[in-house]
Amino acid sequence: PLSKLSDVGTTIFSQMTQLAQEHEAINLSQGFPDFMPDSALLDHVHYFITKGFNQYAPMGGMLGLKEEIARKIEDSHKAVYHPDSEITVTAGGTQAIFTAIAALVKKDDEVIIFEPAYDCYEPIVELFGGIIKRFEMRAPDYEIDWNAVKGLVTDKTRMIIINNPNNPAGRILNENDLQALINIVKGTSILILSDEVYENIVFDGKTHLSISKYPELKERSLMVASFGKLFHVTGWKTGYCAAPKNLMDEFRKVHQFNVFSVNTPMQLALAEYMKNPEHYLHLNSFFQEKRDFLRQGLSGTSFELLDCEGTYFQAVRYSRISDQNDLDFAKELTANHKVATVPFSSFYKNRLNEHVIRLCFAKKQETLERALEHLSKL
Amino acid sequence: PLSKLSDVGTTIFSQMTQLAQEHEAINLSQGFPDFMPDSALLDHVHYFITKGFNQYAPMGGMLGLKEEIARKIEDSHKAVYHPDSEITVTAGGTQAIFTAIAALVKKDDEVIIFEPAYDCYEPIVELFGGIIKRFEMRAPDYEIDWNAVKGLVTDKTRMIIINNPNNPAGRILNENDLQALINIVKGTSILILSDEVYENIVFDGKTHLSISKYPELKERSLMVASFGKLFHVTGWKTGYCAAPKNLMDEFRKVHQFNVFSVNTPMQLALAEYMKNPEHYLHLNSFFQEKRDFLRQGLSGTSFELLDCEGTYFQAVRYSRISDQNDLDFAKELTANHKVATVPFSSFYKNRLNEHVIRLCFAKKQETLERALEHLSKL
Ligand SMILES: CSCCC(=O)C(=O)O
Ligand SMILES: CSCCC(=O)C(=O)O
Repeated sequence: PLSKLSDVGTTIFSQMTQLAQEHEAINLSQGFPDFMPDSALLDHVHYFITKGFNQYAPMGGMLGLKEEIARKIEDSHKAVYHPDSEITVTAGGTQAIFTAIAALVKKDDEVIIFEPAYDCYEPIVELFGGIIKRFEMRAPDYEIDWNAVKGLVTDKTRMIIINNPNNPAGRILNENDLQALINIVKGTSILILSDEVYENIVFDGKTHLSISKYPELKERSLMVASFGKLFHVTGWKTGYCAAPKNLMDEFRKVHQFNVFSVNTPMQLALAEYMKNPEHYLHLNSFFQEKRDFLRQGLSGTSFELLDCEGTYFQAVRYSRISDQNDLDFAKELTANHKVATVPFSSFYKNRLNEHVIRLCFAKKQETLERALEHLSKL
Repeated sequence: PLSKLSDVGTTIFSQMTQLAQEHEAINLSQGFPDFMPDSALLDHVHYFITKGFNQYAPMGGMLGLKEEIARKIEDSHKAVYHPDSEITVTAGGTQAIFTAIAALVKKDDEVIIFEPAYDCYEPIVELFGGIIKRFEMRAPDYEIDWNAVKGLVTDKTRMIIINNPNNPAGRILNENDLQALINIVKGTSILILSDEVYENIVFDGKTHLSISKYPELKERSLMVASFGKLFHVTGWKTGYCAAPKNLMDEFRKVHQFNVFSVNTPMQLALAEYMKNPEHYLHLNSFFQEKRDFLRQGLSGTSFELLDCEGTYFQAVRYSRISDQNDLDFAKELTANHKVATVPFSSFYKNRLNEHVIRLCFAKKQETLERALEHLSKL
């Protein structure tokens, strides 16, 4: 057979964005801002391009950027990573996730994931012959029963993938969750891949608890983050992975033959821009305003708002409006009501349908207003 | 064991560039220009960034760029690829190669490569459980004995990887080579991965023969190219893959979960810039001047010039100067004579040493002059 991934189609994010374009619908599906990044950041790119920084960056990334990343992690989580040997700049969070799995998951290794899950984890693990064990978090709270998770662990468990804050559910892990995770991995050789691309988007004064904050987790973890989400430049495809040297060495063996290195002028611009922590520390309140505006606008409607502690996604249940499955509902919402969203079932292997869709609120005030106008008619 | 790639070290290109920096040597090792790209191209980036094109590109690439790519291939090789479904923009040539192998090579599949070979092919194949069969091209002519290649074919042969023009040997495939390849694959299901990143750098009025020119090859081939090499922007990490839809479908299944998409403003700038074919058609003569200058400067020395039909690399044999192996020789040349190069043995799995090193001549006149000053002392 030609195909190694025979049951893989096109990712739901591309599908829904395309459908939005076809129907000229407001696109609250794929997760990207519709407003401008800070012009100071853009100016930096212009500066470095015209100054002549257009050739290969070092394989692990520009040192200046890696130093800023290390400083940010230390400031935020009191965790120390060596900039040169424990941080690698990647072509986005996705490439970091792909590369970590490629480097560390072998045939028949078991990998535990939590659903609803970002749709790349499972096919990547499958590509390398790994076996997925899943814990299903369910509406409306998406809580984790750690005893059940423990029941998934075997002597073949190679990796646990966590996503905190969670896309699409907008939930964050609390102290109890992380202690439970520590108890599960203690004394094992299980690795953790921690997708924290929304780390700086957490609401209501709550705190993002990075795996890097916990020495018992950090020593076995690869942490993934995204400049696209941090600075409203998803199209620059830049992110990073931080991990202890023994894991980072393996990561780089694959990274160097996957993309080799990452866009040089963008790296330099990001390094310059990161020097001012205010450039990312304001994100919590910046996005909380948008979340609150969307929630307020929806509160008079038949949509039921689920909790949103972090990420730029709001989950809503529509069961008072329709008993269609969520994929059909999302398609109809796009075609007839001109608002594109993402159905939660796309984040579950078995297409679990709990009548929940995801709305991206990383949008201009005006976009959110127009969307609310349409949605409030339902 | 932690490592899936236990015998993989850091790529020679990073090693030699680092050594060059340590010794403040002229860096003719890693393949990148030390001069500026065209300012018109840089202006395009500034335009699109400030116009607000900073969010995710479509997964396969910006349509405008894919259309320019399709037009270029049709103009150059009279081959037709559908822009939307048969071309994918990648984060550089390397990511295209990685993704093609990831999508199509399974455990125990055999893959034929020609050495000297770019150092990523083998570890990528190994990562997916494939088995390398190698044909060694040898100094000074690096010719291919196609009967010997045919002898490597079994019913497990999944893919043949060609690199034309060849890095590091600077040789191109001629009509006879391609006919021999056609004879080998005819009636089989063998795929071809054709790394043509130096396609527009061919000298002395010779013609680059792309696999896309031959319908019997095109139908089973993935062609890889690089904007970094084409427009002197290796640090932008942009390239593409072209292939018939059935192969491209498989390619994209992996691509979407590896990098998802590629830098948006750079794609738009490249599309704009490609509209004028003179922007790449002049490359042959542009680099031929540099090649000729380097060859002329070396012709009075003890270095023996091997043929260079394409790429921006000149291979030289140093056996009249030293009987050291080429890695030691290259290191000493860097440390003591302040010129960094790449030893050919790095392109052979068995580290075959024929006393040949590679010099990159994608450098300013002044850089080449300084390098020649040092080299002519040997
Ligand atoms: C890579 S496209 C998906 C973007 C995203 O993070 C999301 O929509 O969940
Ligand atoms: C990806 S670094 C290597 C660059 C290159 O093409 C070479 O030096 O051969």
